[in-house]
Amino acid sequence: MGSVSVFTKIPNLLKELRSCLPAVQFHEITSGVPNLCIQILDKDDKLKSSEIIVADFNLLAPVLYNLPKTKWVQGTWAGVDKLMPYIQQDNLPAFTITRYSGKHFGRIMAEYVLSHIVNHERDYLNVYKNQIAKCWKQDGKISDYRVISDLNIGILGLGQIGSWIAEILHKFGATIFGFGRKPNLDKNKSFVKAYYTKPTLKDFLQNCDYVINVLPNTPETKGLLNGGVLKNCKDRATVFINVGRGSIISDGDLIQALDKKWLSSAILDVFNEEPLPESSLLWSMPQVKITPHVSAVSIARHIAEQFMDNYKLHMSNEPIPTTLDLSKGY
Amino acid sequence: MGSVSVFTKIPNLLKELRSCLPAVQFHEITSGVPNLCIQILDKDDKLKSSEIIVADFNLLAPVLYNLPKTKWVQGTWAGVDKLMPYIQQDNLPAFTITRYSGKHFGRIMAEYVLSHIVNHERDYLNVYKNQIAKCWKQDGKISDYRVISDLNIGILGLGQIGSWIAEILHKFGATIFGFGRKPNLDKNKSFVKAYYTKPTLKDFLQNCDYVINVLPNTPETKGLLNGGVLKNCKDRATVFINVGRGSIISDGDLIQALDKKWLSSAILDVFNEEPLPESSLLWSMPQVKITPHVSAVSIARHIAEQFMDNYKLHMSNEPIPTTLDLSKGY
Repeated sequence: MGSVSVFTKIPNLLKELRSCLPAVQFHEITSGVPNLCIQILDKDDKLKSSEIIVADFNLLAPVLYNLPKTKWVQGTWAGVDKLMPYIQQDNLPAFTITRYSGKHFGRIMAEYVLSHIVNHERDYLNVYKNQIAKCWKQDGKISDYRVISDLNIGILGLGQIGSWIAEILHKFGATIFGFGRKPNLDKNKSFVKAYYTKPTLKDFLQNCDYVINVLPNTPETKGLLNGGVLKNCKDRATVFINVGRGSIISDGDLIQALDKKWLSSAILDVFNEEPLPESSLLWSMPQVKITPHVSAVSIARHIAEQFMDNYKLHMSNEPIPTTLDLSKGY
Repeated sequence: MGSVSVFTKIPNLLKELRSCLPAVQFHEITSGVPNLCIQILDKDDKLKSSEIIVADFNLLAPVLYNLPKTKWVQGTWAGVDKLMPYIQQDNLPAFTITRYSGKHFGRIMAEYVLSHIVNHERDYLNVYKNQIAKCWKQDGKISDYRVISDLNIGILGLGQIGSWIAEILHKFGATIFGFGRKPNLDKNKSFVKAYYTKPTLKDFLQNCDYVINVLPNTPETKGLLNGGVLKNCKDRATVFINVGRGSIISDGDLIQALDKKWLSSAILDVFNEEPLPESSLLWSMPQVKITPHVSAVSIARHIAEQFMDNYKLHMSNEPIPTTLDLSKGY
């Protein structure tokens, strides 16, 4: 088999891979100069001759078409934004590329979603301000709050990550509405009360106290919430949480939906431009919470564990669940 | 059967009870003057003649021994602090008293626990401060955080509420250590990795990145964490979350454990004296978060649903799971 090349900036990943699969030889590809990967490739025949590569997508992308021996690339990220612009649709790579995803990513994002819902519903920011004033106050939402079981929660994107978030919110008693790309809901997703697709987006939005976007950036999802479609959130004054990709709505249309009170609030981890420019109006809107793209991070141990599972599938010629369909872009 | 008396200050409870059990007659006991319940009783023979009563424990307590016809009281609270001082141990009431508890209370407290763990691990307070400064910063714990699956979490108290919290944290991947009053762990609690009781409290504490207290105030639990026992938390610099009762540790001993860094932080919803006096040092300790006893609130609809279930058990002479053992005090 030869060794597996590891091309990443994630701390400790090499160590964790070696610990998970002690019988496999791993070889580190180091990049002294960021974004100059092609030069490195010339110097490093190991990558060029590798059948299996573990790589950050941004490091791998520029050398994608210089990997004649490669059979499988395991990415270390869930998002493919940094990879897809390099894919030539009339000349797709012949090897398999798998995303890092799975239950760990879902539960790390679910931690973010849950804590932000509870913080918002129970007004914890004011509780904190009251502490500074040494003030014991139970007024307003601090004691008279909605619990998760009071909420209708819509999930845009019911892949592995979205499903994990939906399932845990359902366990807390939420009523779950799902929106996805597939025409029909998978049978094992009984935690979803009703399922919608693009033609019924309006009906989906009308049901939701919260809309949580988990969709990736693809031609299909780009601008999905643009225009006046969020007007359908008006009656419930929906809270919008975005942990997918910023491209689902333009900044102008998002700000309009907030100004017109179609959305009562927005909790945003991803943006059309990152880092969010200082000039963005979003920073100072009181009904907007901004976090700097940290709802989930790739944790070395989790990537190594997923690689271990996938490695076994690959070695026995079985399909790997998170394989990219490069022609579709996800 | 006669009608069921409802003696509560919880908004909408009467309405929700009527909606859950339309065939049962409910009668409202109103208290114009707080804490003068005995006078009211003289005026209101309905309560005195009631076989079944739904009541807030603080309202019920002063009239406990004036209920000759009563067979069952359903409380609206989980805590029995306001009730127990009125119980005469040599003259226990002849009727059944049940607490309000069950899955709803567990999941409402779990919302609190989860959001506070995530807020703490991911430094969301600084993320909020960065937003005010329009500053996109991923430094420190903001991006390099522990996820729940990295944590050893100890739960003090594995009744219905504690078990729900433990089970959901286990679903997020936490390693769960349990501490309880029963000599052995119930067989259905496989989410608990190891179980401890009073003689092994030190071993329990040594394991935990977080200790979550869910225990009620009883003679057995009062001062359980007093003295130097929290020294056992030193190596892991445990975070202490208290959603049970403040009496588990004196203020002095808690402040000492924080000052000596046995505990790295404390997230406190309950206190020895409530409201927490303005003079308390806890208010201004930077490693302490204070919330004003709001981790769970009794929600009218949930109480009504639990009463409905319990009413069916009562009518068929079956035991009700949350029945108090007045001789033990919980």
